[in-house]
Amino acid sequence: MNDQLWWDDIQPGDRFATGHHVVMRDDVIDFATRYDPQPYHIDDAAAAANPIFGRLSACGLHSFAMATRLIYDAFVANGIKPVAGGGIDALRFERPVYPGDTLSGSVVVEGVRPLKSRTDRGLVQMRMHIRNQQGETVLHYSSALFLPRRDGAA
Amino acid sequence: MNDQLWWDDIQPGDRFATGHHVVMRDDVIDFATRYDPQPYHIDDAAAAANPIFGRLSACGLHSFAMATRLIYDAFVANGIKPVAGGGIDALRFERPVYPGDTLSGSVVVEGVRPLKSRTDRGLVQMRMHIRNQQGETVLHYSSALFLPRRDGAA
Repeated sequence: MNDQLWWDDIQPGDRFATGHHVVMRDDVIDFATRYDPQPYHIDDAAAAANPIFGRLSACGLHSFAMATRLIYDAFVANGIKPVAGGGIDALRFERPVYPGDTLSGSVVVEGVRPLKSRTDRGLVQMRMHIRNQQGETVLHYSSALFLPRRDGAA
Repeated sequence: MNDQLWWDDIQPGDRFATGHHVVMRDDVIDFATRYDPQPYHIDDAAAAANPIFGRLSACGLHSFAMATRLIYDAFVANGIKPVAGGGIDALRFERPVYPGDTLSGSVVVEGVRPLKSRTDRGLVQMRMHIRNQQGETVLHYSSALFLPRRDGAA
């Protein structure tokens, strides 16, 4: 793990790479069963009948959850410790995510902004791309995160 | 359950109410441990030290997952059977979601659009609001969904 990166250390254009995650069939079914039990995300026959997916695939929410974990781990590896998340924009599911796929991704800093009302943290806008083992983008989104400022620690 | 609602049956301004979900402490910790293990979402002492949350709260992704399930169940109750989701926009976490909170929400149809390239389904843009037991909005977002068309079934 690197030293902590504060809001003050982050600049537009900074890039971080994630590790890899192999999508497990049991996790796909378990996650969808709990949070988005569309038949085509939990049953092979229903998945085969779906005109978009064709076979069992992760629900979009699960793909987004796996992306979040990849990015969390990349943040830990780079010493980035968000205080909280501010929101998600333009989350797009470009391709299905299938059991057996290997996901990885990248984070690019799009912008940084101090907060008028708070001096202990600032805002960072990041763009996330997650790809499969063929290098095809499966989803992408923008995320606003509050990072602590170096001189603002309590 | 009602009869199936097709894309053709949905109009801007249509509203659907969700049921209720009580946030469980064990689920909060388990979900964050898997997908967003920020210390303040899994440990009481770390949560108390966080300047935004103050005590253990669900990670935003988990709040979004619980919202998704509430809306899935509302769709089932109203006969809405999406073919797939197209994307999420402007997801905002307005207030922390704490164990013991009771979540419920509403869906409002913002727009409908046929697809030039496909006659078997159309697009519906919906705006989701999720509230806690005090009636305070905890999160909101827009969701694009593909619904099957009445005359387009295979």
